[in-house]
Amino acid sequence: MSLTLGELAVRFGCGLHGDPDVRVDSVAALSNAHPGSVTFLANPRHRPRLAGTRASAVVLEASAVAECPVAALVAVNPHATFARIAALLHPRPAAPPGIHPSALVSPEARVDPEAHIGAFVSIGPRTVIGPRAVIGPHCVVEDGVEIAEDVHLVARVTVCHNVKIGARTLVHPGAVIGSDGFGFAREGERWLKVPQVGGVVIGADVEIGANTTIDRGAIGDTVLADGVKLDNHIQIGHNCVIGAHTAMAAHVGVSGSVTIGQRCMLAGKVGVVGHLTICDDVTVTGYTMVSHSIRHPGVYSGGIPAEDARTWRRLVGRFKRLDSLVRRVAAVERATGTRSTVHQGEDDD
Amino acid sequence: MSLTLGELAVRFGCGLHGDPDVRVDSVAALSNAHPGSVTFLANPRHRPRLAGTRASAVVLEASAVAECPVAALVAVNPHATFARIAALLHPRPAAPPGIHPSALVSPEARVDPEAHIGAFVSIGPRTVIGPRAVIGPHCVVEDGVEIAEDVHLVARVTVCHNVKIGARTLVHPGAVIGSDGFGFAREGERWLKVPQVGGVVIGADVEIGANTTIDRGAIGDTVLADGVKLDNHIQIGHNCVIGAHTAMAAHVGVSGSVTIGQRCMLAGKVGVVGHLTICDDVTVTGYTMVSHSIRHPGVYSGGIPAEDARTWRRLVGRFKRLDSLVRRVAAVERATGTRSTVHQGEDDD
Amino acid sequence: MSLTLGELAVRFGCGLHGDPDVRVDSVAALSNAHPGSVTFLANPRHRPRLAGTRASAVVLEASAVAECPVAALVAVNPHATFARIAALLHPRPAAPPGIHPSALVSPEARVDPEAHIGAFVSIGPRTVIGPRAVIGPHCVVEDGVEIAEDVHLVARVTVCHNVKIGARTLVHPGAVIGSDGFGFAREGERWLKVPQVGGVVIGADVEIGANTTIDRGAIGDTVLADGVKLDNHIQIGHNCVIGAHTAMAAHVGVSGSVTIGQRCMLAGKVGVVGHLTICDDVTVTGYTMVSHSIRHPGVYSGGIPAEDARTWRRLVGRFKRLDSLVRRVAAVERATGTRSTVHQGEDDD
Repeated sequence: MSLTLGELAVRFGCGLHGDPDVRVDSVAALSNAHPGSVTFLANPRHRPRLAGTRASAVVLEASAVAECPVAALVAVNPHATFARIAALLHPRPAAPPGIHPSALVSPEARVDPEAHIGAFVSIGPRTVIGPRAVIGPHCVVEDGVEIAEDVHLVARVTVCHNVKIGARTLVHPGAVIGSDGFGFAREGERWLKVPQVGGVVIGADVEIGANTTIDRGAIGDTVLADGVKLDNHIQIGHNCVIGAHTAMAAHVGVSGSVTIGQRCMLAGKVGVVGHLTICDDVTVTGYTMVSHSIRHPGVYSGGIPAEDARTWRRLVGRFKRLDSLVRRVAAVERATGTRSTVHQGEDDD
Repeated sequence: MSLTLGELAVRFGCGLHGDPDVRVDSVAALSNAHPGSVTFLANPRHRPRLAGTRASAVVLEASAVAECPVAALVAVNPHATFARIAALLHPRPAAPPGIHPSALVSPEARVDPEAHIGAFVSIGPRTVIGPRAVIGPHCVVEDGVEIAEDVHLVARVTVCHNVKIGARTLVHPGAVIGSDGFGFAREGERWLKVPQVGGVVIGADVEIGANTTIDRGAIGDTVLADGVKLDNHIQIGHNCVIGAHTAMAAHVGVSGSVTIGQRCMLAGKVGVVGHLTICDDVTVTGYTMVSHSIRHPGVYSGGIPAEDARTWRRLVGRFKRLDSLVRRVAAVERATGTRSTVHQGEDDD
Repeated sequence: MSLTLGELAVRFGCGLHGDPDVRVDSVAALSNAHPGSVTFLANPRHRPRLAGTRASAVVLEASAVAECPVAALVAVNPHATFARIAALLHPRPAAPPGIHPSALVSPEARVDPEAHIGAFVSIGPRTVIGPRAVIGPHCVVEDGVEIAEDVHLVARVTVCHNVKIGARTLVHPGAVIGSDGFGFAREGERWLKVPQVGGVVIGADVEIGANTTIDRGAIGDTVLADGVKLDNHIQIGHNCVIGAHTAMAAHVGVSGSVTIGQRCMLAGKVGVVGHLTICDDVTVTGYTMVSHSIRHPGVYSGGIPAEDARTWRRLVGRFKRLDSLVRRVAAVERATGTRSTVHQGEDDD
C-alpha cells in the first residue's frame, strides 16, 4: 500500500507542511526511519531526534513544525494519528471467508458465511460465530459461545463454554477465556471443589494478550467492559468486573470478585487482593500489592526501586531493626524531655 | 436437574427448616439469587445479606437459622455442603466414551474403552489412559505417560513423556506438565544444557490451573501429592515436592528442588527460592519472597500494602536514607548518654 | 546406551581414578544414585555427601578425589562435563525426517527433507524450515517464518509471521513468539491500537521456556542474541534487545524497548521498566523492580525476605510511620544540639 502525503492529510485531517505528492508506504521509528516512511513525534523529550530523521514525513504537533527537517503532518494527537496511518499502511492480511477443511464445526453451531474458521479449529454445539470473525488456527471454542462480528482470535486461543465476546475484540495466542475459577471449600484437611457455574462476558474492542487467562464466574459472570486492554500473562479471577477502557500490563494478577472502575491503568506485576473495589481513573504503578479498596482517583504505588546488592542488604537490615531504632529514639526523648504529646503511646513499646 | 429440598436434606445430611417439597434447580449467590435456587452463608460478615435473599433455600449453620427468611438447609460446614449441592445441580456434561475420529492415538498406546479422547488429540506410544478419563480437544500427550481413572484434561493441555497423573485430577487449558527444568552448567560465558531426565508424578484429586507449568525433574521426579490445588500461571520448578492438600494462588513461582509440606497455602505472586524446605501447615501471604526455609507452622509475610504515590515516594525516600537516620540517632545517644548496652555495636557505624 | 568409564574419560578429557572397564548407563543425583550411574560434585557444600554415594562414578574436581569412595572422573568443570555425559547417556529420541500426514504445510513453504513436521502442525506460506529442525505436534508456524537447522519446537508452540529463529534453538510448549506488543495511543478515554509491524529475531542456541511470550517489535525487531536462556512464564516486550548468554528465571517481565547486555542473570519475578538499559554482566536478584538503567556490572537487589506475619506487620507499621520517626529524631537533635551540618535540610521536614 502506498499513499501520498496529500491523501494522508485529507484522510486524517492533518495540516501538511511539505510536498503533497510525496509517496509513503510504511511506518518507522523516528531515529531509524528510511525514505518512503512516516514516523511520529509525541514525547517532547524525543524532539532533539527530529533533526536527524530520514523519514519522508513526521506526524507531530503544530509546535514542532519549525524543527522538522522533512514534511510534517500536523495533528492534535500525533500518536493516535500515527496509529491510524500505520493501520492503513500495514493492514492485517485478510482471512478468506469460509471454514478450513480440517476444522471441526458442530452441526449445531451457527457460523456466519463471512467468518473465517482456520486450520484445526474445533467449535462446539450452540456456538454462534458472527460476520467477519476470524477464528485462527488451533483455536478451541467450546459449546454455547457467542462471538460477535469482527472478533479475531489469532491462534491457539481457548474459549470455554458459555463465554460471550463482543465485536472487534482481539485475542492473542495461548489466551484462555472461561477456565474454572479457583474455588474450593475446606473440609478437614481436604479441598472440595466448588463448581464454577458462571460465565464470562467480554465487551467490544477489547484486547487480550498472549497466555492471559480469564476465569469464568463461580456464580454469575466475570465481566470485561468495552475497550479493556490486557497485556500478556495476566490473571483475571472469577467474578471480577473490569470497567471500560481499563488497561493492564503484563503479569498483573486480579484475585476473585474484584471490581475495577473505568479508565484505570495497572502497571506490570500489580496484584489486587480478592473482593476489593477500585474506583474509576486509578493508576497503580509497577509491583504494587493493592490490599485495600481504592476509593479516590489518583496514582498508587508499592514498589521499591532496585539498589546495588550491598546497599540493599544494609537497608533491609536497617528495616528489620526498626523496632530497635524506635526504642532508641524513645529513650533519648525521655532523657531529653523532647517527646511531644502527639507521639504519646504511638511508637515506643 | 431439579430436586426437592427434602431430597437434598436427606442426601447431604442437613437439617431442614422449611417445606421439603420446594424444588430447586440451580445455585446462586446470596445477594443475587432467584426463586428456584439454593445459596449459602458461610462467612458471618455476610449474615446481614440473609434478610434480602430471594433464593428458595440457604445452606447455613444452625446459629443462623432464626434469621433466614426462606427455607434453611442446616449444615456443619455450609460451604462444603453447598459445593456438593452445586456439583449435583450443575454436573459437567458427560464426555462420551471413545476416540474422536480426528484424534491420533499411537497403536502402542493403551486407551481404556470407557475413556474419551477428543478432537485433534495426539497420544504417544506406551501411554496408558485409564477408565473414564477425559482427554479434551487439542491435548498433546507424549509417550510413556500414565493417566489414571477419571482424570480430566480440559483442552489444549500438554503432558510430556513419562509423566504420571493420579485419579480424578483436573487440568485446565494451556497447562504444561513435564517441560524441561531450567538447568544449565556455566562454561566460560556460555550455558550448557543439563539434560532433564527425571519425570513428574502427580497424585490423585489434584487440580492444575490454566497455563500453569510443572517442570520435570533434572534427575528423579517432580512430585505433587494428593489433593494439591494450583491456580493459573504457576511455575513449579524441577524436583520440587509439594505436600498433600497444599494450595497455591495465581502467579506463584516455586524454584527448583523446593520441598513444601502438607496443607500449606501460598497466596498470589509468592515466590520460593530454590532448594528450600517449608514445613507442613504454613501460610504465606501475597507477594512474599521466601528466601529461607520455614521450619515452624504459621503465617509468613513479605508484601507491603499500597499507598498513594506521593506518600509512597516519601516513605521510600525515608527508607533509602535509613543509614543516615541511624547515625543521627547514635549521635544523640552519645550526646545524652542514653545508649543502653543492648544496642552496643549493633547499629551505629 | 551403556559406556565404560574409560570411554567417558577419553571422550571428555577427564582424569580417571578407578576401573576403566566399569560400565554406566545413566546419570543420578549424588545422594540418590544407584550402581551403574554417574553423578557429579560441583558445589563444595555437598562434599560431605560424597562418602555415601552409591553411584559407579563421580565427576569431580581434582581436590575431591581423595574423598571419593567410588571411581572418580576428574574434570576442571564437573557440572559442564556431567551435562555432556548426561546428554550422551540420555539422548533425546530422534524425530524421523518427514511431514506427518495430519500436518498442513503451505505449498509456498519450503521444508528441508531432513526436517520433522509433527502431528497437527500448520505451516504458513513463505516459511522456511531448515535441516533436522523438529516442529513438534500442534505447533502453529505462520507465514514468512525462518527456522534454522536443528531448531526444536517441542509441542504447541506458536510462531507468528516474520519471526526468525537461529540454529539449535529449543522452544518449550505453550511459548508464543511474535505476538503483538502492547502498544496503544490514548484518544479521549479510548485506547487506539498501534499496529505492531516489526518482527522477532532469535539467535542460535537459545532456549525459551514453557508458556513464555516474546512480543514482536512495534517498528523494528525484538532481538534475542545467541545463547539467551529463558525460563517459563517470561514476558519480553516489544523492541527489547537481550544480549548473548543472558539468562532469566521464571516470571521475569521485561517491558518494551529495554536493552539488556550480555551474560546478565535475572532471577525469578524480576521486572524491568520500559525503555531502560542494563549493561553487560549484571545480576539482578529475585523480586527486584529495575526502574532505572544500570550502567555498572554487579549485583542488584530489591526483594525483602519473608518474616513471620506478626513481625512483618510491626515492621510495615514502623515503615509507614518513618516520617514521624524522622521528626522525632530532628526534635531531639535540636534539643541536644547534636545535628551535624551534613544532615541539614535533608530529612526533618
